[in-house]
Amino acid sequence: MKFARIYHETLDGPEPRVAVMAELDSGWIDIRAALRERVGHDGASIEAARRIAGAVVPSSLSDALAGGAAFLDAARWARAERPARAQVPADARLINALDPSGYRDYMCFEQHFSFGYRWQDKPVPDVMYELPISYCGNPLAFLGPGEDLPWPGYSVRLDYELELGIVIGRPGTNLTPEQAIAHIAGLTILNDVSARDIQAREMTGGLGPSKGKHFACVVGPYVTTLDELPWKSGLRMQARVNGETWCDTSSAEAIWSIPELVAWASQAEQLVPGQLLGTGTCNGGSTIELGRELSPGDEIEFEIEGLGVLHNRVGTPGPEPWIPEPRAHA
Amino acid sequence: MKFARIYHETLDGPEPRVAVMAELDSGWIDIRAALRERVGHDGASIEAARRIAGAVVPSSLSDALAGGAAFLDAARWARAERPARAQVPADARLINALDPSGYRDYMCFEQHFSFGYRWQDKPVPDVMYELPISYCGNPLAFLGPGEDLPWPGYSVRLDYELELGIVIGRPGTNLTPEQAIAHIAGLTILNDVSARDIQAREMTGGLGPSKGKHFACVVGPYVTTLDELPWKSGLRMQARVNGETWCDTSSAEAIWSIPELVAWASQAEQLVPGQLLGTGTCNGGSTIELGRELSPGDEIEFEIEGLGVLHNRVGTPGPEPWIPEPRAHA
Repeated sequence: MKFARIYHETLDGPEPRVAVMAELDSGWIDIRAALRERVGHDGASIEAARRIAGAVVPSSLSDALAGGAAFLDAARWARAERPARAQVPADARLINALDPSGYRDYMCFEQHFSFGYRWQDKPVPDVMYELPISYCGNPLAFLGPGEDLPWPGYSVRLDYELELGIVIGRPGTNLTPEQAIAHIAGLTILNDVSARDIQAREMTGGLGPSKGKHFACVVGPYVTTLDELPWKSGLRMQARVNGETWCDTSSAEAIWSIPELVAWASQAEQLVPGQLLGTGTCNGGSTIELGRELSPGDEIEFEIEGLGVLHNRVGTPGPEPWIPEPRAHA
Repeated sequence: MKFARIYHETLDGPEPRVAVMAELDSGWIDIRAALRERVGHDGASIEAARRIAGAVVPSSLSDALAGGAAFLDAARWARAERPARAQVPADARLINALDPSGYRDYMCFEQHFSFGYRWQDKPVPDVMYELPISYCGNPLAFLGPGEDLPWPGYSVRLDYELELGIVIGRPGTNLTPEQAIAHIAGLTILNDVSARDIQAREMTGGLGPSKGKHFACVVGPYVTTLDELPWKSGLRMQARVNGETWCDTSSAEAIWSIPELVAWASQAEQLVPGQLLGTGTCNGGSTIELGRELSPGDEIEFEIEGLGVLHNRVGTPGPEPWIPEPRAHA
């Protein structure tokens, strides 16, 4: 199955709707509307059908996934039956497919992370080959397809990062990689937008990054379940800028597998539905390692096999920031 | 005002309730129950009163704060009127005061962070005096007062970190420090629990930390609004282990002020109600910098002026973890 979120305007303002792609890729189906039809047909009053469908299919994909089979069964039914009144118009706007309950990002691609350490004038640390290393990102700053990438006023060097996103579907702890597979809801395209100049300064502190990353991530256009993807043999990953291909690689180059990342995340922790794990930037998946730069107005397209195309435009620099006064050393 | 969350058992399982301390520190008041009394007295039916009170005072303090004045007015009324049927029994169990919508942690205390770099055999980087440096933590692993600290099976060196927690109350972006004050809901005690051995390994990678931190944080016992605290002149901060004082310091030693941290967090980002910003460990606020160690069963008490006492016991090591096989270098 493929899940997206649709921007739906109501009398009370926007209300995102979780949608599933109908069989034969014949269009998005509003799962809540489909479930309303189904329970209404089975005898529920209009009001009761609306209440039940709203509880089973909330606007948040994270919250919906937390419903487990109650949500997945509704999605499967909508996908197969595609009731006419639940079909989403072809021109409907997709928003961020996932509103993640949490977000951490690994570094799995050797050519990319080796560049990153050279960029910081450092040797590649041994730990990169011993453990999947990650940092947590800001789950509150997620954008979707078609939105302009914000350009912080404190940066002159905006960059993208082409990544594979892993969406957690079921709680679990202390899993092996074999067990971890059943806890994955699906995969999506992730753009871990980066402000390189402040990131470089911050990372001399040896932790984070923070303001180099926290202002924006992009996820979408949809989440595809593992059964529809040749994920074990690797997915083709491409980045295009203004129509020109700047990156064309494969997720098969990651040194840690998807089940290994999820299993490691679950050690001594409870996985939570809607949590997002990024693989880190694929090899060649940022502009800085290509010696290139982005400019306001650039059109960015990320494409990953089976996960669609994620399109965004680079925005214009934001207002002059407030910046703290440096402190004296003790 | 002081806000806490109370563990409340219902026919449908536990349902946390947000409570406010009554005037004269005369006991916790269940704000939802108090609002139900109030709107019932003003003519609402029992069912309508329950519905309205549930919407204005949800179980999550983050969600409640997002209600703005609708929530704060209900809290003020409950605090002043303390209706008998909303009084919380003195033996009620407090849980994590905040279920944060997001969490980032700064490093503001020079003596502590200087130790940290020495511990990693590094000089203190200049950026520590130029910008407030932070990392994002895991908002999904928060514990409350009285809970045992989990000890991951992959670590032999558990530590605490005594910190001041800043709770965001109102959205805002690109704020100055003067503006930032009005966006703070209050302060709380934060224990950023750490597994030092894996943290040290991970941080040779120069980002994160991740598994050294993601398994647990503790917050509580309550959140106190700024008007009740002498925060500008600094708050006394103490850590006791098995009744012995191991740390006795002041938040006044931070090199960045509370409004500066919030203002910097808000640059090019939208602050979100319920977001938690930690100051980082106060000077002397971890065991590693004292050359001491924690053991299973140790009783830890953190006390901060105006914020109460946060008590937890150190748990026993968890099960043998799954650990990935190291990879060959390219």
